This record gives sequence, structure tokens and C-alpha cells, in this order.
Amino acid sequence: MMIRYGMIGGGEGSFIGAVHRKAAALDGNFELVCGSFSSKPEKSKSSGRALGLAQNRVYASFEEMIEQEAKLPEDERMQAVSIVTPNHMHFAPAMKALQNGFHVIIDKPIAFSLDEAREMAQKVNETGLVLALTHTYTGYPMIKEARHRIRSGKIGKVRKILVEYPQGWLATFLESEGNKQASWRTDPSKSGAGGATGDIGTHAANLAEYVSGRQITQVCADVNIVVEGRKLDDDSAALLRFTGGATGSLIATQVAAGEENDLKLRIYGEKGGFVWTHTDPNSLLHKPIDGPAQTLRAGNAYLSEAAASNLRLPPGHPEGYLEAFANIYNAFARAVTDHAQGSYTVPEDYDFPGTKDGVRGMAFVETMIASGKSETKWTDFII
Amino acid sequence: MMIRYGMIGGGEGSFIGAVHRKAAALDGNFELVCGSFSSKPEKSKSSGRALGLAQNRVYASFEEMIEQEAKLPEDERMQAVSIVTPNHMHFAPAMKALQNGFHVIIDKPIAFSLDEAREMAQKVNETGLVLALTHTYTGYPMIKEARHRIRSGKIGKVRKILVEYPQGWLATFLESEGNKQASWRTDPSKSGAGGATGDIGTHAANLAEYVSGRQITQVCADVNIVVEGRKLDDDSAALLRFTGGATGSLIATQVAAGEENDLKLRIYGEKGGFVWTHTDPNSLLHKPIDGPAQTLRAGNAYLSEAAASNLRLPPGHPEGYLEAFANIYNAFARAVTDHAQGSYTVPEDYDFPGTKDGVRGMAFVETMIASGKSETKWTDFII
Amino acid sequence: MMIRYGMIGGGEGSFIGAVHRKAAALDGNFELVCGSFSSKPEKSKSSGRALGLAQNRVYASFEEMIEQEAKLPEDERMQAVSIVTPNHMHFAPAMKALQNGFHVIIDKPIAFSLDEAREMAQKVNETGLVLALTHTYTGYPMIKEARHRIRSGKIGKVRKILVEYPQGWLATFLESEGNKQASWRTDPSKSGAGGATGDIGTHAANLAEYVSGRQITQVCADVNIVVEGRKLDDDSAALLRFTGGATGSLIATQVAAGEENDLKLRIYGEKGGFVWTHTDPNSLLHKPIDGPAQTLRAGNAYLSEAAASNLRLPPGHPEGYLEAFANIYNAFARAVTDHAQGSYTVPEDYDFPGTKDGVRGMAFVETMIASGKSETKWTDFII
Amino acid sequence: MMIRYGMIGGGEGSFIGAVHRKAAALDGNFELVCGSFSSKPEKSKSSGRALGLAQNRVYASFEEMIEQEAKLPEDERMQAVSIVTPNHMHFAPAMKALQNGFHVIIDKPIAFSLDEAREMAQKVNETGLVLALTHTYTGYPMIKEARHRIRSGKIGKVRKILVEYPQGWLATFLESEGNKQASWRTDPSKSGAGGATGDIGTHAANLAEYVSGRQITQVCADVNIVVEGRKLDDDSAALLRFTGGATGSLIATQVAAGEENDLKLRIYGEKGGFVWTHTDPNSLLHKPIDGPAQTLRAGNAYLSEAAASNLRLPPGHPEGYLEAFANIYNAFARAVTDHAQGSYTVPEDYDFPGTKDGVRGMAFVETMIASGKSETKWTDFII
Repeated sequence: MMIRYGMIGGGEGSFIGAVHRKAAALDGNFELVCGSFSSKPEKSKSSGRALGLAQNRVYASFEEMIEQEAKLPEDERMQAVSIVTPNHMHFAPAMKALQNGFHVIIDKPIAFSLDEAREMAQKVNETGLVLALTHTYTGYPMIKEARHRIRSGKIGKVRKILVEYPQGWLATFLESEGNKQASWRTDPSKSGAGGATGDIGTHAANLAEYVSGRQITQVCADVNIVVEGRKLDDDSAALLRFTGGATGSLIATQVAAGEENDLKLRIYGEKGGFVWTHTDPNSLLHKPIDGPAQTLRAGNAYLSEAAASNLRLPPGHPEGYLEAFANIYNAFARAVTDHAQGSYTVPEDYDFPGTKDGVRGMAFVETMIASGKSETKWTDFII
Repeated sequence: MMIRYGMIGGGEGSFIGAVHRKAAALDGNFELVCGSFSSKPEKSKSSGRALGLAQNRVYASFEEMIEQEAKLPEDERMQAVSIVTPNHMHFAPAMKALQNGFHVIIDKPIAFSLDEAREMAQKVNETGLVLALTHTYTGYPMIKEARHRIRSGKIGKVRKILVEYPQGWLATFLESEGNKQASWRTDPSKSGAGGATGDIGTHAANLAEYVSGRQITQVCADVNIVVEGRKLDDDSAALLRFTGGATGSLIATQVAAGEENDLKLRIYGEKGGFVWTHTDPNSLLHKPIDGPAQTLRAGNAYLSEAAASNLRLPPGHPEGYLEAFANIYNAFARAVTDHAQGSYTVPEDYDFPGTKDGVRGMAFVETMIASGKSETKWTDFII
Repeated sequence: MMIRYGMIGGGEGSFIGAVHRKAAALDGNFELVCGSFSSKPEKSKSSGRALGLAQNRVYASFEEMIEQEAKLPEDERMQAVSIVTPNHMHFAPAMKALQNGFHVIIDKPIAFSLDEAREMAQKVNETGLVLALTHTYTGYPMIKEARHRIRSGKIGKVRKILVEYPQGWLATFLESEGNKQASWRTDPSKSGAGGATGDIGTHAANLAEYVSGRQITQVCADVNIVVEGRKLDDDSAALLRFTGGATGSLIATQVAAGEENDLKLRIYGEKGGFVWTHTDPNSLLHKPIDGPAQTLRAGNAYLSEAAASNLRLPPGHPEGYLEAFANIYNAFARAVTDHAQGSYTVPEDYDFPGTKDGVRGMAFVETMIASGKSETKWTDFII
Repeated sequence: MMIRYGMIGGGEGSFIGAVHRKAAALDGNFELVCGSFSSKPEKSKSSGRALGLAQNRVYASFEEMIEQEAKLPEDERMQAVSIVTPNHMHFAPAMKALQNGFHVIIDKPIAFSLDEAREMAQKVNETGLVLALTHTYTGYPMIKEARHRIRSGKIGKVRKILVEYPQGWLATFLESEGNKQASWRTDPSKSGAGGATGDIGTHAANLAEYVSGRQITQVCADVNIVVEGRKLDDDSAALLRFTGGATGSLIATQVAAGEENDLKLRIYGEKGGFVWTHTDPNSLLHKPIDGPAQTLRAGNAYLSEAAASNLRLPPGHPEGYLEAFANIYNAFARAVTDHAQGSYTVPEDYDFPGTKDGVRGMAFVETMIASGKSETKWTDFII
């Protein structure tokens, strides 16, 4: 089934809006039927035109879009909204969409604050609608393979979880130079309580928990503003404690000058470790305790269904970020389709990040910020 | 402008058909409006249904499709066909499409034989229509960067061109086990004169010529059937001579057991070299003669327009095979759009592989096969 | 000048004793003339025999060796001792050697405790003799290059220092299986207060300080015993604060099952970063903020004298651990030679780790252990 | 047993002389007791002095050295000579040494011509003395592991052998600028019939044969002088046929500007492949046909005795070029020791390259040069 969706945000010049559209288009499961692409009506119009939408399906505001679409015949109106606005503009459109019976797929972090996240989660529960959160990195097939193998006991009890996310693009005072991406991400009124912590730290924490199957219970964080004049943290690191007795550490910095986007996850257990890095996402290193390291590679017959069902190509044909993104869209599509056919019950039946991840993500940000200010070593993970 | 296209071949179970559809969909420049997906009408129908096409736009044969579509109103009928059948079924549909005024995008190699290729090239010239050939690897942004930098003189006069394409998937007698991909690729009646030579050797040769700006003038080839019972070459290697005095070598083997799809290109000139490999397609190594090697990476501001215009994402967000494929589709779309608007003149204005590449590809196969049988060292490249 | 030296410890079956001897031999600057290779006189004898030493220069104890050698003619007796015993047996022979006028080169950590280290440092000062400490990793040429370039301002002000040293060999309760290396390293009576912290954490901290030119001022450590039954920490991690305002983190774990010995250092400043890893020690990655990463490689003409003077081979001829070790021996030899010729004044004139590094190393262990037990976030570095 | 040896060549400024001395010294099996370091008596003297040799053991010519040493008491005189002169000066000293009862270790290629090589081989046979040839790359432990595993049938019947040795250091007319290394290597009167073919092609061919256990039977070579004014080939490539039906290719070029010394060997059989590269010599990639690639690493317990007996360090402690070199010296030492004790019979009992490799090396050069000039595709390997 092809899902009809509308987009909120993502007008001309937006990075993440285009990413969502390409991810939705890739496998032919989504059709963009309407949009409210900007808070500026003119920009929304011109963006919609450029995307080839019918004039009357391009709206001046998200309120208008949701209200008008709700009035259209069931087989014509959008079924889902994709929300790709800055963080402070997630909550209102998501709530209104849910209230009007539309499924929601939303860029991370889920909201501006933990309170908002909790309220959204409750609304999703009440309505029984589908909400997916694009924690992209969990969409990578080899990440799913790692998760599957750890669940299957390949490395025994998990002991050590090391996750790091170094970027360098905020090593200068970029927001003072008119850079749009930098501006809202470093602005507390748009981004929320966390800077690097929210922007990339949430990805790192989510990935670590997703793959390890362990949850952070305590953090000891060092949260810094390195670039003078900046208003939100651009550099953080933390010692971590997880359920089940594992420990670990997390690095989320945007001032590692010269680095690009090098998310890396290492998980060690009694019998070996798994290493995955975003610079080579189609490989997964399995390091057994008693033999040579194995490089598991996308596309091969020896992979689990968890990976295989998220792959499109044979071995040696690299898939990337957009494909990982599309995997989340596709899982969302399956849930929405099942919902339309009456067979959807709970999100746990599907493999996409949702409100639980969203709430934990916001809690992670607030925990990190609190720990960063605390003189006590360990801060309990806020739940 | 959104291009309406129809597909010939690519029914259920086809690998390359799905690749073409995803590549076409990715950036929102193409809409699949019709298809003739299989020589078996029933399979064509069910494939079309699965793709959500209107029943009356799914045809029993390519002849029917081209004839019927030609009768539709101009703003409704398909504008282009995508041909994704085995090699022996490229010529007839391509010729018929061209004769009926449809643009063509076609999987490589362009045809079954050099004669067919020449005839197609002539037809394209006559009709002034657009024909693109999906030599995917030339669609990679860092390949375009390498080509740009070599053209700009970064390594001076080109001296040495090393290209290799090792695969391992045909290291066993797979075609005897019912493997569909292996069956037609090793069948001379479907694949043509070349096995590995045609399937991957043409990619390697095309890439070497595209990036270096040099053309092969002579080859000295060793062409082998390694796996007993096989009917076409599964392993070849050649010494090469190029225009401008460069020399080189080419390896195209499908019996390198354990290898995936590891196309690699190295070009050395007086002042340094460039190295690109398909296992890390978002990097391009520049090795200057007098300083440390530089790793040029996709998404960075220092790249040329040639690369930048074929990229969607910032640094550190890997793009892959489908994106490279889509780049060819997008260039084709630009030409088709210009054609519709009357501004298209010659394919050289666009950066996509076309009939010239197609003719050279078939000539490469025939030259390799001839050289493989010859006891003389050098065989002139057939033109 | 060829230095005559004697060895204390390093009898048959010792790993590090053989390493010292090979490092000393490599460049022809040292001659082993005597030894006390074991606390068991018989084993000392047989070890000496196997090494081809004259019978009368193989001693039953280090006391005997030092006393007897001191009685030999000046141009015959040893000039220096190499101490390669477990940590608890460093202090006594080093002090006795110094008291008798012999130079000392000693495996790290310098002593069993910070107090011992301080006393040794004072003795070195008093006697004016040379003491070198084999913090091997500082002997790598590309490490020296990194240090040189950071000192020269290549990356501007240092902001972020990430060092990690994951090993996996203690992921099981190896000391219960008769493994000699594991046994003393996990025994508080032989190893000292720190397990992984002392064995490899000191290397990591020393390397970070050496290359960055910054000193740790505060640590916030998580120090764990992961393997049940073990008596010393086998896993530690810390957040770090450095002089000059830099922050960072350190990982020193021996339970990262599947890892070998993968020391890695990353230092970021305002204008870029340097990355070095022990798995590829002949490369140094320079990541400038505004251009492609450069891979600096051993042996090339563009390297500084700091690196070049510690290299033996042209580019592409890998040097390894023993060569790095030998570089420390060679620097020690230069100081000893100068001492013999009356031109030695202070160790700062030479590039080898010495008592200052040794004292800081022991302080690092004690600080880490104290922080690990503390509920306060930051623990001042003990000086 | 410690072997007393003398060196011929390797005076001040020599690269390879120092390499031999360090390799000999590393493991304490050799003592340099005399030398004739240069054809210039004064330079020989000063070189000997710098090395700390007794004045009367530094000779003005190799003839003098061999004659004088032969007169010394058996337990004092040198037992072996190490010959590290340019190629044209290998034969005379080697023959004289053998005639006077001294064992010989000699840098590759063994001689100036195939005839010389044959004569030396015959003399070795006659005298029953030991002659080792330093084909360094065969000394790498992971190379020995690859050979062992291929012999053991791990990849089944060998089908494809790809070896390449790209260097860039002769990409300019370096010999015209007074570079000593370049000067003799590009001078036919000192180097012999082959340039790159002899200097590095022989290494590549030797390595391919050593590891695969197959011998080259035919070559089809392209041999070029790329840099204008040069007198010997600086670039060659060849298609190869091996015993047992394997085919392959070889690249040996010194004009790959920007490359260092990147010898790489790939061998594929029915069941998988092995890949080794000199840039990461402590790893060996095993790519099985039916599972993930394994990275075999030096120092691990799972390695064969063939590798283990040539390693000094635990996993993760890199060994390099000098260690590989030393492995050949050590094997030579074992043979010489056995000879002294009367237990030596044939070189095949030891794992070092010898006259058979030397003769095949010279035959390889002559075959390549002949093939390069031939218009026939295949040239039989001259035996």
C-alpha cells in the first residue's frame, strides 16, 4: 500500500526536509500529497510548487493543513504527517495531527522538553495511532545485525558499551555567520535544553541502548560550551552505567575540528565484541574472544533476517544514510498499512523508534544537563 | 519537471529493475506510469499491480506498450522508457522506442553486439532523442571529482591507469543451481560474446576512460573460463595502451572467491595519483608526489561543482550505489526536460553515459575476446 | 659510543626482558655485559648462559651484581642497568644502582607507589645520573611528529584530548589458570594500587600529556573490577581536565574482549585535529578544519626532525614496537654518552621519559584509584 | 650460537647495509666482526670505525678480507659474509667467499645476470655451504601464515594470483639529481638487465611463488621506460601463467607517483582467498567463499607454527620490515649453526630464500625483458 503523507516544515533550503522526502520516495511506499513547508505562507507555496504538488494542497500553516485535510474524503486525504521543523515546533503539529487522526513521523529529538515528550507519548497511547521517530542510525542494516547477534547471545553478557559521536562543524562560532543549521541548533529557544547533547548525544545514547538491549541508569557528565559566545553546549562526554551491570562512556562533541559525522559504537561482552562505525556502515566487526575478527558485510547470505529485510542490494553495493532513513519510513509504512487494515496493535510489533525512544531521548538530555551541573559523581537517569 | 516513464523488464524477482525504479524515485524527478515487466503477460500484470500501476498501463509486451502509449495524449503518455532486460533484449525495445519518439535509458551493456550498438547510436543521432546508459560507477560524486581534478591538471600528464573489478560470486558453477542472475549472465545467447568481460569488464573500462580522459587503443588480454562447464569467460585480465601514451592494466574476474564487488581505479600522472575504491565510495585519495596523501571526502566545501552537484548530504553522511544510479537518472531527466522545452542539442552537454560509451563498451568486449584468442601480443581496439 | 649494560630481571620466559634486549641491540648502541636475570640463582645462571654471557658476569642477585660490577675497572664494568622486573621490584635495584653510580633504564610504571617514585626522582636529582623510563609509545616517530606539530601551533589552542587503550586479554580470569603475565599484573602485592590503571592507563595518560603538551589537573574516574575474583581493577574510564582549559576522556580497559592493544590518541584544537593509532603506527592523520585530511607517513621528507631522527627506513617500510622501544634506548644512550664525556646536564635536553613522567604516572594511578572511590565528581590530580 | 660475520659493502650512506646490520643484531644471533665496507679503502676504514670494529678487521677490499679472515683461527675468524653491494658486485665476493669456506647471505637480486646466478648456485651445491638471499617480504610472519594455509588446502586449488608492487619514488629523473640509490638502480652496468623489473619485480614474483606454491611458466609483459632519459625500465606489468593451471598478473612500477612501497598479494582458490599488503603487514585477510572475511593478526594463538616461530611480540604489538629481515637472518643462522655442528644437509630443511630463488629471480628478469620486446603474446619462463 502506498501511504499518502503531508509534510510540515522542510521548505526550500531545509536539509532534513529533503532527506525525509527522499527517504519516503526511495522504495515507493509513500506519496507526498500535501504540505505546509514554512511558517511563511509564500515560502510554503513556492516550496510546494517546486515539489510539483497541487496548488490547493499546499497550506499556509500546519493548522490549516491538518484541518483541511481532515475534511477530504478518506481515500484522498493524507494518512500521515512528516514533521521536520526545528525542535520547538515538533509538539504543536504532532499533537494536532494525532488529535485529528493522522499518523506522525517526526524528526528527532521528539520534542523541545521531556514534558512535551511525555504528553505526546500519552496522546499516542490514547489514540492508538502510529508515531515514528527518525533515529536514523538504528535504521542501518548492520546495526540491526549487531542488535540481533547480541540478543542471540553471541558475546554473552554485555559488559562495556562505548559510544562516541564526534563532529567538527561547530568548532567555530558559525551561528554568528548566518549559517541556518547552526543558528537554530545553538539557540535554546529553538533547540531546547541541549546543544550537542540533544543534537547528536541523543542519537548516540539511543543507538547504544538499541543495540545493546541495555538502558542507561546513571550518568556522570562533563558538559561544556567550548566556543566562546555560544549559548548551548557544543561538547559533552559522560561515564555511563547501564541495566544489567554494564558500564560505558559516551562522547558527543561538535568541536572536534576536522571530524565529519563519525558515530561509532563498540559493545563488549564476556565472549567478544561488536564494532560499528558510520564511516563504513555496511560493515560490522565481530571480534570473538578466541579467534580472528570477522567483518560481517551487508548483502551476504549469512546475515540475519533483521539485517536482510532492511537491505536492497547484493554484497559490495553500498547503501547509505538515505537508505537507513528509508528503512524507518518503511517500518512506519508497515504499521500505518496494518492500522488501515485493522491489524495494528502496538508499536513493539514493528522495528522503528517511537515515543518510548522519544521520551528516553528527552530524559537523556535533561539528565546530561543536570549531571553536567552537579558536583556529585553519578546522576540517576531521569525517567 | 517530473518525467513520466515506462519500464521494460524488471518484473518480480529482477534485481536491476528494482534498482532502476528506486534510483528514478529517489530525487522525485520520475514517475513510473506504465510497464511491460515480463515477456510473460501474467507476470507483467502482477508486477505492475504490485507497483500500484493502473491496470490499463500494464502491458503484455513492449511492442504493445510503445504502440499504446504513443496513442495517449502528449501530457499523459510516458516520455521515456527504462530498459532493464537481459542484454539480448535491449536492442529491439530501444529501437522501437526511439522510432516512436520516446527517450531511452538502458542498462549496460547497451546491446548484445557491437553491430547492434552502432545501429542504436545511429538511430539516436537521427531522431535527436536522448539515450542514457547506466554505467553506474560514473555516477559517483568522488569519481566525478577525480575526473575534474585530472582534467584540471592536478597530476599532470597521465601515465598509468590501473583498474580492477574482482568479484567472487561466480566462483562456483552457480548457473547449474537455478540461480537466475547467473543463468542469463553466463548464457551466450542472452549475454552476448562476453561473460565477465561484458558484465563487469565494460564497467571497469568505461570508468577508466571516463576518469582519465584517455581512450584505450590496444589491449593484450588473457580471457579464461575458470569454472568447468561454463560457456562464457568468468575471468579476464589485460594490459592496456591508451591515447596520450599512458599504459595500464585491467582485471575483471568473477572467480575471486570471497570478493564482493570491489571495483578500484588508480590513475597516476607526473605529479601524483588518484585512488578510488567502491568499498569506500565517498572518499577519493589524492596522492601528490611531494606531500602527504589527502583524503577528499564527499560533502565538503572544497569539492568541485562536478561532485557537489551530484551529492545530497553533508560530510559524513554516506551515499551509495542507488544515489550514484540516481545521479545518472537525474542527468537524463535534465536532458529530457530540456528536450521537451526545445533546448536540447547534444548529449555532450550533459554528464551521463550514452551511445558513445555504449558503442565503446561493445567494442571493448569484442576486442577483449579477439585478443584473448590471439597469439599476437597487442590487439587494436576495434572502433 | 657503545654502552655496556646489565639487566635485572628478564630471565627465561619473561616477555619484557627480551623486548628490552632486542631494543637495546637493534641499533648497535648497547652491549649486554652482565645480568641478574631472576631471583632464583639457578634460573639467572641458565638465562645468562643462553644469552652468551661470560659465566662470571651472571649474578645470583641484583645486589651482588651492582656490588661486583662496581669493583671492575671503569672501562670494563657496566655503565647502566636495565630493570625489567615486576613493579614491586623496581625501587630497590634502581636505588642501589643509582647509589653505586650506575645509570638506570627501567620499565614502566617507575615504581610500586608514588612515594617510591618520588624518592627515586630525588635520588636521580642528587646523583646527576641518567634514568629513563620505557613509556614505549612516546618512542614512535609519528607520535613525535604529532607533538612537534601541536607545539608548532598547527591546530591552535588544544581543546579536546581523547585517549583510549582497550585490551581484551584479561576478559577471563586468566590469573587463575597459571598465566604468568596475568598473575603478577593482577596481584596488588606485585603490581601496586592499580591494575589496568597502572598497566595501560599510565601509558595512555603519559602519551596524552606528551603529545598535547598539557597536563591532567583533575580526573573523574570509574574504576571497575569486571572479572569476578580479580583483585585489581581491569577496567577504567575517566573524564579529564587539563592545563590550559582542555578537557578530555581516557579509557583503559583490559576486558574489551576481542581487542588486542589498540592505543589511540586524538587531539583537537581550534584549527584541526591529530589522530594516531597503534594499529597503524607509521601513519598520523592530520585533520585540518578547512581542508581534506592528510595522512602523514613515516619516512617522508616532509616530516620534522623530531620524527626523522627516530626513523631508520624510507617510506613504506614499516617500523614497529621494537623500533619505538629502541628509540628510547637510543635517547638514553645519548645521555649516558654525554654523561661519560661530561656534557650531560639535565634530562630535559633529551627526548626520553624520565623521573618526571614516572612520578606523574604513579600520581595518575593514585588519583584514578582515589577518584574511583569518591562520590564527588572531580578529584584533583595528586602532585 | 652467535654467528661471527663480516660485511661487504654497506659503508656510510648505504641504506641496505644498515638494514642488514640491524636485522642481524636484533635477536642477538650475529656479531659483526669485520668488514670491507667500500671500494674506497678510506671510506671502508671510517665506516668500520663508526661501527666500533677493531682496526685490523676493517679491510681495504673484499679480497683482502676473505683472504685475511681465512688465515685467522677457526674460533675467531668470521663464519659468514653479508654482501650488500650493488648487483654487479654480488658475484665476485660471493664466489670468493664460497671458495674460501665462508657462508654467504646476500641482498637480492642474487647477481647481475642469470649466468652468474647459475654459477653461484652450482658453487653452493659443490661446497655444501649455506647461501641465503634476503627476499625480505617472505620473512613476514603473516606471509608465512598465508603460505601455510594455502598449502594446507584452506582455499582449495589455487586459481588466481595477483601481485603488485607500486612505488612512486622514480617518477622523476632522480638519477640526474645525484640521488645515490636512484643512480645505481637505473644504471644497466650496475643493476643488470632489469630496472623496476629487477629491483621490485623480483620481490613480487618471488613472493607470489613462495606463498602460492606455484611457479610462473609463462609471462606476457609490458616493460616501459616512462621517465625520459632513463636507461632501464621503471614500469612493468605482466599477465602470468603458473604451474597447476593458475593464472595471474603482476605489476612492478616505480612511477606510480605518490605511492610508497605498497607490495600487495592476493591469491584466490576454489574456496576463498588470501590478501596481504605491506602497508598492514601484521594482518592477513582470509576471505572464505561462504562466510565473512577474517582478519588474522600477528601474535595470536590461532596462528600456525610457521608464523609463530617468526614472531617476537604478543597481539597488537606491530613488527615491521626489520623484523621480517631478521627472520631471514635467523633462519640463516640456524643453518650455519647446524653446519658448524655437522647436521646441515640441504637448504630445503630451512625456511630462507636461497640459490633456487636467486636463479628464478634472475630468470624472471630476463624473461620479462624478453617478453617486453616480443610481439608474441606468451614468452616461456626461462629456466
